[in-house]
Amino acid sequence: MISAFAANEQGAELEPFQYDPGALGENDVEIDVLYCGICHSDLSMIDNEWAFSEYPLVPGHEVVGRIAQVGDGVVGFEVGQAVGLGWHSAYCDHCNHCESGDQNLCAASTPTIASHGGFADKVRAAANSVVAIPDGVDLAKAGPLFCGGITVFNPLVQFDIKPTSKVGVIGIGGLGSMAVQFLNAWGCEVTAFTSTESKRTEALELGAHHTLNSRDEAVLEAAAGQFDLIISTVNVKLDWNLYLNTLAAKGRLHFVGATLEPLDIGAFGLIMSQRSISGSPVGSPATIAQMLDFAKLHNIAPVVEEFAMEDVNAAIKHLRDGKAHYRIVLKR
Amino acid sequence: MISAFAANEQGAELEPFQYDPGALGENDVEIDVLYCGICHSDLSMIDNEWAFSEYPLVPGHEVVGRIAQVGDGVVGFEVGQAVGLGWHSAYCDHCNHCESGDQNLCAASTPTIASHGGFADKVRAAANSVVAIPDGVDLAKAGPLFCGGITVFNPLVQFDIKPTSKVGVIGIGGLGSMAVQFLNAWGCEVTAFTSTESKRTEALELGAHHTLNSRDEAVLEAAAGQFDLIISTVNVKLDWNLYLNTLAAKGRLHFVGATLEPLDIGAFGLIMSQRSISGSPVGSPATIAQMLDFAKLHNIAPVVEEFAMEDVNAAIKHLRDGKAHYRIVLKR
Repeated sequence: MISAFAANEQGAELEPFQYDPGALGENDVEIDVLYCGICHSDLSMIDNEWAFSEYPLVPGHEVVGRIAQVGDGVVGFEVGQAVGLGWHSAYCDHCNHCESGDQNLCAASTPTIASHGGFADKVRAAANSVVAIPDGVDLAKAGPLFCGGITVFNPLVQFDIKPTSKVGVIGIGGLGSMAVQFLNAWGCEVTAFTSTESKRTEALELGAHHTLNSRDEAVLEAAAGQFDLIISTVNVKLDWNLYLNTLAAKGRLHFVGATLEPLDIGAFGLIMSQRSISGSPVGSPATIAQMLDFAKLHNIAPVVEEFAMEDVNAAIKHLRDGKAHYRIVLKR
Repeated sequence: MISAFAANEQGAELEPFQYDPGALGENDVEIDVLYCGICHSDLSMIDNEWAFSEYPLVPGHEVVGRIAQVGDGVVGFEVGQAVGLGWHSAYCDHCNHCESGDQNLCAASTPTIASHGGFADKVRAAANSVVAIPDGVDLAKAGPLFCGGITVFNPLVQFDIKPTSKVGVIGIGGLGSMAVQFLNAWGCEVTAFTSTESKRTEALELGAHHTLNSRDEAVLEAAAGQFDLIISTVNVKLDWNLYLNTLAAKGRLHFVGATLEPLDIGAFGLIMSQRSISGSPVGSPATIAQMLDFAKLHNIAPVVEEFAMEDVNAAIKHLRDGKAHYRIVLKR
């Protein structure tokens, strides 16, 4: 039996929940959970915002733990090995995306939460969705890398961002605070867009070279034509054409956070300077592995607050109240 | 003196106009005009739609002719040589874009029309904005390549489109009819989106492998997830999220035509499948030269209707009435 915390209905507080995971699948592993991050997506799933939640629902998709069992067909993982598990706990393995190394784009992938997530003592997943954590990475802080971290790291790989690029990050929160660190280590000149004075100072400490007030139109207008890449991590509507205008020719405004409201982008702003807007979700296992090596080399770690797993409801309230600084990790 | 046709005020019919171009600049050439295409942008300039027209305004930026004079500092062009001139007649030559071979993105470039365009017996331009036309290219049809043609060819170069890509073209008109030909020769599987039956048949003749009704929602919904690239050449508002949904993962919806209305793109459609939307204007001289070689090799030519240059007002009316099939060329 696996002991977990589950929401029994939409928006509910989590309650202790036990389930029998059955026999371990041939290509699966079981992970003893040590830590599990809480991500905004966990709240969205608890609240059924995306209309595919099934209850009882065990949230948690930023899992760090140790291999407890391996299926008969699994090679390359050993019991006791430190591993992480992110948004996906299985891929179809034979679609074009899976076969091209873009498993994160697999339309038949399984979200970890959908098969019972990491707010638990154990969690199971297909071995090829689990990534080994290199020695030397702080396991207590690694959880948020597996969803928030890879979400902001992946675009740098996907779009072959150069260290000579000038980049911006909109929103200094869970994702933005990791993006600033990655981009600094990537060699880029980094500007953080934020409207909060305390975050402005922290962004500079985390590696931003400059900050701009994200809500000051005059400041944004004065920044026209500067950025090769801007990563937007916020889920509020901003004046996107103002940001588009801060892009250099061939620049890209990339969304990893989003509202449901349309982006109302002016086509001429795209055409005249050959700009792009785009988005992307998490990253592939191979890119997660690259990120972990990069984070280790450059001493990059999420800024986390730790809660005991049994205090999960207090932790969720802390996040719902907008008080998380910047990511929350549950310790079992 | 140069004998031209000019609009003396916004929206006016063109009238004969003579001007003295002065001494030939050191780095300039003078071209004896043989042919000049008419582009929708000429109408926009006559009508001052973009608010930078100055009158008397000599339209014409799809010029084909022969070198008549070269400035003292010009090397590589000889009197009598066949050349073409497109949207730009000069670049700043020292900005980052010019130095990177992206002269078409130079913010200090001069539009050909702004310095008196090609509806004339002669036109002048900086030598580095003029491109030699290879022997064997039909001069009577080459004009539209220098604006409409390069506008749809350039994205294939900019985004490194693979011959294995599945591509779509929205709008079978002046630009779309050239895009279909280029993309077929590029090796791609080409789908034309059009709502006009006669254009459907022509699109297939020009090289489309498939056609889809651009105004049939059910057809577009059934085409979900197919295209690696869609080039939109239209200047009407369509349901862009429907088209976004026809893109494969990592697909790109690229605008070379545009309305002033915002694109109202849903961010989740970008994020979930790592899609992009983008735009671009014309192309650099080096890319124009590549296009001319490619067009020659593959026998690609715009479909044109020819008018005598003195019938320029009839030709403009034909275009304004939406009757052009597909590009109009003035013959001097």
